Amino acid sequence: MNVEALYHRPKNNFAYAYDEKTLHIRLRTKKGDMDHVSLLYGDPYHWTENGWQTDKMAMTFSGSDEWFDYYFASIEPDFRRLRYGFELHSRTEKKVYTERGLFDEAPVDDTAYYFCFPFLNAADVFRAPSWVKDTVWYQIFPERFANGDSSNDPPGSLPWGSTEPEINNFFGGDFEGVIQNISYLKELGIGGIYFTPIFKAKSNHKYDTIDYMEIDPQFGDKETFRKLVKICHENGIKVMLDAVFNHSGFYFEPFQDVLANEEHSRYKDWFHLREFPIQTEPRPNYDTFAFEKSMPKLNTENPEVRRYLLDVARYWVEEFDIDGWRLDVANEVDHSFWRDFRKAVKSVKPDAYILGEIWHDSMPWLAGDQFDAVMNYPFTNAALDFVASEKIDAVGFADKIMNVTHMYPENVSEAAFNLLGSHDTQRVLTLCSGNKEKVKLLYVLMMSYSGTPCIYYGDEIAMTGGRDPGCRKCMEWDKLKQDLDMFHTVQKLISLRKQVAGFGNGSKLRFIQAEGKTLIFEKTCEGSSVVIAVNADDHPAELSYSIDAEKTATNLWEQEEAVTGTLHFILPSYGFAVYEVK
Amino acid sequence: MNVEALYHRPKNNFAYAYDEKTLHIRLRTKKGDMDHVSLLYGDPYHWTENGWQTDKMAMTFSGSDEWFDYYFASIEPDFRRLRYGFELHSRTEKKVYTERGLFDEAPVDDTAYYFCFPFLNAADVFRAPSWVKDTVWYQIFPERFANGDSSNDPPGSLPWGSTEPEINNFFGGDFEGVIQNISYLKELGIGGIYFTPIFKAKSNHKYDTIDYMEIDPQFGDKETFRKLVKICHENGIKVMLDAVFNHSGFYFEPFQDVLANEEHSRYKDWFHLREFPIQTEPRPNYDTFAFEKSMPKLNTENPEVRRYLLDVARYWVEEFDIDGWRLDVANEVDHSFWRDFRKAVKSVKPDAYILGEIWHDSMPWLAGDQFDAVMNYPFTNAALDFVASEKIDAVGFADKIMNVTHMYPENVSEAAFNLLGSHDTQRVLTLCSGNKEKVKLLYVLMMSYSGTPCIYYGDEIAMTGGRDPGCRKCMEWDKLKQDLDMFHTVQKLISLRKQVAGFGNGSKLRFIQAEGKTLIFEKTCEGSSVVIAVNADDHPAELSYSIDAEKTATNLWEQEEAVTGTLHFILPSYGFAVYEVK
Repeated sequence: MNVEALYHRPKNNFAYAYDEKTLHIRLRTKKGDMDHVSLLYGDPYHWTENGWQTDKMAMTFSGSDEWFDYYFASIEPDFRRLRYGFELHSRTEKKVYTERGLFDEAPVDDTAYYFCFPFLNAADVFRAPSWVKDTVWYQIFPERFANGDSSNDPPGSLPWGSTEPEINNFFGGDFEGVIQNISYLKELGIGGIYFTPIFKAKSNHKYDTIDYMEIDPQFGDKETFRKLVKICHENGIKVMLDAVFNHSGFYFEPFQDVLANEEHSRYKDWFHLREFPIQTEPRPNYDTFAFEKSMPKLNTENPEVRRYLLDVARYWVEEFDIDGWRLDVANEVDHSFWRDFRKAVKSVKPDAYILGEIWHDSMPWLAGDQFDAVMNYPFTNAALDFVASEKIDAVGFADKIMNVTHMYPENVSEAAFNLLGSHDTQRVLTLCSGNKEKVKLLYVLMMSYSGTPCIYYGDEIAMTGGRDPGCRKCMEWDKLKQDLDMFHTVQKLISLRKQVAGFGNGSKLRFIQAEGKTLIFEKTCEGSSVVIAVNADDHPAELSYSIDAEKTATNLWEQEEAVTGTLHFILPSYGFAVYEVK
Repeated sequence: MNVEALYHRPKNNFAYAYDEKTLHIRLRTKKGDMDHVSLLYGDPYHWTENGWQTDKMAMTFSGSDEWFDYYFASIEPDFRRLRYGFELHSRTEKKVYTERGLFDEAPVDDTAYYFCFPFLNAADVFRAPSWVKDTVWYQIFPERFANGDSSNDPPGSLPWGSTEPEINNFFGGDFEGVIQNISYLKELGIGGIYFTPIFKAKSNHKYDTIDYMEIDPQFGDKETFRKLVKICHENGIKVMLDAVFNHSGFYFEPFQDVLANEEHSRYKDWFHLREFPIQTEPRPNYDTFAFEKSMPKLNTENPEVRRYLLDVARYWVEEFDIDGWRLDVANEVDHSFWRDFRKAVKSVKPDAYILGEIWHDSMPWLAGDQFDAVMNYPFTNAALDFVASEKIDAVGFADKIMNVTHMYPENVSEAAFNLLGSHDTQRVLTLCSGNKEKVKLLYVLMMSYSGTPCIYYGDEIAMTGGRDPGCRKCMEWDKLKQDLDMFHTVQKLISLRKQVAGFGNGSKLRFIQAEGKTLIFEKTCEGSSVVIAVNADDHPAELSYSIDAEKTATNLWEQEEAVTGTLHFILPSYGFAVYEVK
């Protein structure tokens, strides 16, 4: 038994409240080391004449990553409290694993040996808004989605799509453009729009805020925005805005005041100024985002700044009825601010969605007290490495997906914001070197994964674009230049997500086989499962999968008679098959 | 290389802010697996033409427990942000360990491979009050410490010490008794008193609160308490009270109202009532502490209850100037309550000490947003298992101590509340079967360990007592019956802690040797170290320790000429030696 590979520490992704009644317990062991594992558990205060009273239940094998196996148990303790350990059975040994190490037999003279989940307090349960699980997002970079009102175009705006995007050029995209194209989004089937920043700012991306309380005039005004939100809501579309609270823009009034008045400015504690006079060259002598002089870091520990930003957070929810906030550079702002932010936002709209931009492991922000989700780049990387760059094979992909799956609690994964690309990355078709079949396959992987998927504007019609600014081209509205086959593929996947139980959320993912560049995985929920076969290779592949005797498989992608017995998949290069088994 | 043994996950005890400038990074590896380990690190945004710019520093080996080695680095990043990985050198292999797994060479094309400490925000730094590190506590169970005013004795009180303590008997201990004996505590040298509950309650232990806003009349009144705090403060003694917020007593007015009015009570949401009518037999049908019907669990998620308890928390600090709260059954109350509790208490006294009663691994409460410390029973268990019950040998003790040391951040360990016993355990002398030399040795271990140690009243004069109620005897005030040798040992250890740099806090602990029941450990701080030799065996032992050529050792326990070269320890059974090496 490889004892050093054992890992369990209560809370976070290893022992957590799934809901107000249910605890989830996970154990990590060395890959292939155990034959089976049981959970030994009891109420901490339940004693009999024979000592502490324990029960035992088998744990389910829930997947493997590169080095480890994971075991899972779900339990509803009568009195919402639990002491527990693990009975480990390798091929040759039996051991009991507790907070105080390994034992040959489970000790019952004291509960203090055991791991402890002291009490399932409802207040501490991680709770993302329930609508998020059923939402497919569409990310809009407002300057580039559609120009519906030429009267508000910034001076020097270029004709729509007339040239490549550059760091400083403008094309006049605005709210009216979104409003005029709601039917397009509705047809695609999305349920939420994530807008990159819309507040008054200098750049075309608007991440350098000048005024958090004003709409940038190039997009419209508050009334246009109110109309936009109303029309979205009427069409069943939620609206999420981008909160750039880590830093302001250079032209934010308090920062301008600091530049003018130096140490005498009443705003000098709004930023992290390291010395006076303030200088921007060769490097700013104040804290910034990265080393970007135009983005001075806000001092969110200053109560005045905190009050201001929390007012902003509440204002747009209360006054304009927005449904969520995406938090830019969320990991560099203090946890304590985000706790207050959550309270502020949820006090005005309890089911608002709070999404942090964090690219790395984000457990410290996802314990229920801060965010509902982060941008799930670990998923993105796994999918792109498998299909786009082909850096990893099917086993590597399955390992990475299982790693992400076990990195967070299940209720966290159900609200995770999954994406194949954004305004911060190359477009997915460009990453796939123009291979559209690869892109479709990536959409199959994303749309069938738990969480809430997001489409970057234009990806659904096969737009291309390299790194910023290349990925921020004007949306292509000429139907003849839109790839409608791609559109219909994405549209169909969205509708499967809505119509087929467990296709997206609400099911357990299991990899059935992974070999070379092919794989089969299954998503099981009560009474049915979805079986997906994938060929990420540049030549056709044949795979097969045996259905339980009493069940029938229906092809969800092509018209076909229902099948029993064994499913034979004959997949073209970069092809896939999707079946529902009942 | 045992890759499955590697563990690092940012935040908690593995990557944390030690102060506003300093990050501590730790890595866990399989015991004996590595030859040396380096930290590879850089600013997340520092790029050159060769890719991401990294630096490298050697990590220090900081100790081992049963299965693992630990490595440590302390770093002050210029811009308070860090991406990092670990360069691992086993005897035969070199690997780079990152958030995305192992590499042969450190990748520099992207920072996203690396672990991330995104920003050292001052607001998130764990900060216990600085006075706590230099405080030796004394725990008083007020009913049993001293009866200074017979006029407030409860009816039926027994003459002081006339009989064994029972669950329901009273001896009349009170505040006046403490006031009259301040000089005794001052002579012992303690700097803080932790009082078990003093609020109006039914039992002798007062954990069944009737009124959180009133002093129990058997102890005195608010004026007596005010006088007590004042006298303590004049004598340099801090005062910590016990907050029993997990549950109230049966006779707490809101619970009585619920019993009287059932579902019509305006207090019905103050508790967790599972059904009506309320019943107490055979088991209460409302949530309680354990299955104790007289201790109904408070609903700390109810804003009204929360407001009430936070008012209580502030009241005794604001009005009576107490210095800390010990939180009873702290682990069963929601984290969200404790976050508000911290804000409430610190808003009226920023350097108040918040100590949670938690017996198990407590990392989720010690991230800076909730408690300053927990009762460090993992230390207690290690020390008692080694010396009292002799369940483990010196290697086992060193392993367990190193395990506790690495279980929490260093700044957390410096404020940990260490104890050998309390009103909840058998007395230490009883656990040592009356062997007083063993008890002295345990005091040496506790007083020289980082954290803030606590003496349970009477242990310093060698009182005995089994489990509750046995451990709650009346304090022995007859000098002839007090063990003054024990008193002077404890007194001397307290004074060493105050006078010798690094004897308690402020030094790094390293086990030099551990063999059978003997060990030598060293506590190093700048310019000097303390060397302690321990013989936990029932026969004498000889040990030796080489001093650096240019240094001199002074015996801190016995008068002796300063020594150079090699220290020879000739230790009697359960003996010890304490040297300062400069």
